Amino acid sequence: MTQSFRLGVAGLGTVGAAVVRMVARRAATLSAATGREIRVTAVSSRDRDRDRGLDLAGITWFDDPVDLARSGEVDAVVELIGGSEGAAKAVVEAALGAGKHVVTANKALLAHHGAALARAAEEAGVALAFEASAAGGIPIVKALREGLTGNAISRVYGILNGTCNYILTRMELEGLTFEACLKDAQALGYAEADPTFDVEGFDTAHKLAILTSLAFGTALDAEGVSVEGISAIQPLDLTMARELGYRIKLLGVAQIAAGGIEQRVHPTMVPRSSSIAQVMGVTNAVTIDADAVGELTLIGPGAGGEATASAVVADIADVAAGPVRPAFGRPTGRMQPASRVEMQRHEGGYYIRLTVHDRPGVAAGVATRMAEREISLESILQRRSEMAASQDPHGRSGQPVPLVLITYAATEGNIRAALDAIAADGLLAEAPQLIRIERE
Amino acid sequence: MTQSFRLGVAGLGTVGAAVVRMVARRAATLSAATGREIRVTAVSSRDRDRDRGLDLAGITWFDDPVDLARSGEVDAVVELIGGSEGAAKAVVEAALGAGKHVVTANKALLAHHGAALARAAEEAGVALAFEASAAGGIPIVKALREGLTGNAISRVYGILNGTCNYILTRMELEGLTFEACLKDAQALGYAEADPTFDVEGFDTAHKLAILTSLAFGTALDAEGVSVEGISAIQPLDLTMARELGYRIKLLGVAQIAAGGIEQRVHPTMVPRSSSIAQVMGVTNAVTIDADAVGELTLIGPGAGGEATASAVVADIADVAAGPVRPAFGRPTGRMQPASRVEMQRHEGGYYIRLTVHDRPGVAAGVATRMAEREISLESILQRRSEMAASQDPHGRSGQPVPLVLITYAATEGNIRAALDAIAADGLLAEAPQLIRIERE
Repeated sequence: MTQSFRLGVAGLGTVGAAVVRMVARRAATLSAATGREIRVTAVSSRDRDRDRGLDLAGITWFDDPVDLARSGEVDAVVELIGGSEGAAKAVVEAALGAGKHVVTANKALLAHHGAALARAAEEAGVALAFEASAAGGIPIVKALREGLTGNAISRVYGILNGTCNYILTRMELEGLTFEACLKDAQALGYAEADPTFDVEGFDTAHKLAILTSLAFGTALDAEGVSVEGISAIQPLDLTMARELGYRIKLLGVAQIAAGGIEQRVHPTMVPRSSSIAQVMGVTNAVTIDADAVGELTLIGPGAGGEATASAVVADIADVAAGPVRPAFGRPTGRMQPASRVEMQRHEGGYYIRLTVHDRPGVAAGVATRMAEREISLESILQRRSEMAASQDPHGRSGQPVPLVLITYAATEGNIRAALDAIAADGLLAEAPQLIRIERE
Repeated sequence: MTQSFRLGVAGLGTVGAAVVRMVARRAATLSAATGREIRVTAVSSRDRDRDRGLDLAGITWFDDPVDLARSGEVDAVVELIGGSEGAAKAVVEAALGAGKHVVTANKALLAHHGAALARAAEEAGVALAFEASAAGGIPIVKALREGLTGNAISRVYGILNGTCNYILTRMELEGLTFEACLKDAQALGYAEADPTFDVEGFDTAHKLAILTSLAFGTALDAEGVSVEGISAIQPLDLTMARELGYRIKLLGVAQIAAGGIEQRVHPTMVPRSSSIAQVMGVTNAVTIDADAVGELTLIGPGAGGEATASAVVADIADVAAGPVRPAFGRPTGRMQPASRVEMQRHEGGYYIRLTVHDRPGVAAGVATRMAEREISLESILQRRSEMAASQDPHGRSGQPVPLVLITYAATEGNIRAALDAIAADGLLAEAPQLIRIERE
């Protein structure tokens, strides 16, 4: 057996503590798989006195994680501090600068600085591994980087945020509002006190930017992701989705389009019969469309200490076994420049829920504006509220009522223009709800 | 760039031809991913004159694949001949003996000779890679061998044969018989002229034996798989499954049980809401239960030239990048001996469809025999045929009618003993149908 592989773990939160325990627990299997003894030799965290239930005997403690990163006692640094700047970035840069391998679960860091860090790793001849950063315990980074090299990928999309999927699942199954489900998610520890990062789609966007780069061989472009969260989804939208044969999921979608690669995060209507529609609760899923395999879907846990540690430990074993493979599947010099496609040019089906004044001719007026922009309608559903109906059985109550349209493929630019025209006609009692449809 | 990586492809059927094309088509990506130029330098097949639409200019043709395997012109041999003995085995043994890496899609060869071949590869210091052998285009071998090293796995199960899933899907959705669906599957090329290998579960058993070894680190034990196919499934069973909240799938299941590892292939009732129940048609799926990730499911194509070639090419890239990792995730000397658990000791829920004489007291007699063996019943469904009811409205027609039982967890030995007692009581008009239930 060659010499042992020594790990420095920076950050001993839930994931860090799970990694330390897992490396010890799986020592025999890890050495059988890699041919090397793998052990944690150094750790660093903010609070040395906190009881984490860890046996740290024989492990060197560093108050400053950057000192750990530069220590001669470690071959690889496991960064589990989090955040795109500050200590996490300093630790990873210091480790790469000192010629040490890096394993990280940090999606924000990767999404914003992945290309520069991959370049630094390349120059140092060390690995930069980040399986845990994209979909927690799902081995999607390995699948994209190594498992599908024979394929040209046309689209990758998925449920990448468990908090949002939990909220949407409960809204659908129990008919609750977004606000009520968010409160429960917070009480259960599925959502942060400030939930913006999760529910407004930014967490999904970071993960998507990483998957895009792996799938298409392009430079990371987190700023190029169009992002829309789930806070505007109403119980009525979930009801309408069910009636129309869909479910609503917050998806991250990256796909080849005319002129570049679309990267978008938004609530999405997916066919109820699709694999991705079956994914409920905090579970994550990723589907890949590729020329050789057709469709491949991976479903599993997107978060949690043990599941994230599982991905981190798989990376550790890969790095210990060697050799150093390019972080994003190809040398940074061979990554294509990112080429954004603006959302205005996105083409797809749309669910549009208008709140119109209950007057004769409104549906006709809406349909005319759609037709002017060459938008074909697959279906129109008009629902009169019972109250409105009781006030005027002839349908001229003037009360606000929902009017739901499902379109065939249309460009977002045309959809927006038609909605502007409808609003200018004075037909709308409220701002329209617009949810994109994603087909298998 | 280091020297190029030269492939000899033995077998130019659908998969072989797809591999030759894919290696050429993806040359740039493969060299970026691995740091080496990868090219096919030699091929062998039975019929040199057949037009495969391949450009074989500059590629050496071998009439004898064993000569190809020993040729100084190749670094790795891609075995796509098939079959557990004969030419395929000779080629792989010759290649390993000559110190060449082997990539194969051959599940029968692996299931029967995997341990010996892995040992030969180890002794030669070369790779034995077989991603395509377990679930076609689904990267399940990589996931088990590299992606889940931090996990203790308790169960792996899946839909591993597209022919069977196609037949069961059509039987369910269209109410057809097994025989009618098999005929269609044959016409569409999803089933062989002699379908025994697929429909009686042997193909699934080979794949399961490979997954078992990867998941549990045990020696391959294809002979230890309990195998039952789908040919006895009746349309009535699919109807009853729907009413009871299940679907019927042919599953391969390997799980840790008291005293060893159960390996079993049989038609299975799975909850309709489970991920695996959503998998329809020729698609395959594998679910892994593990301590850290919980549940992980991969869904994708289990067969087809391009999908299988995708897995073969991923293996080729891994082998080209190096280093040699143990074929089954650990050195053969560290694989645990296989430890079989007989089906009589299997414990689980059962669907039992009896065909009983329509007489008073039959249900009570059946329930008594079950109770004697400490088998608890979750539900009993008795269906009287309309004809029987029209003959005797008091329920004593004496006609054969179905009586369906769902049991709570019981051992197979007790279930079989209770059924023997029921048969001995003269209550049965036909042999009983027994389908095991698998819960998430």
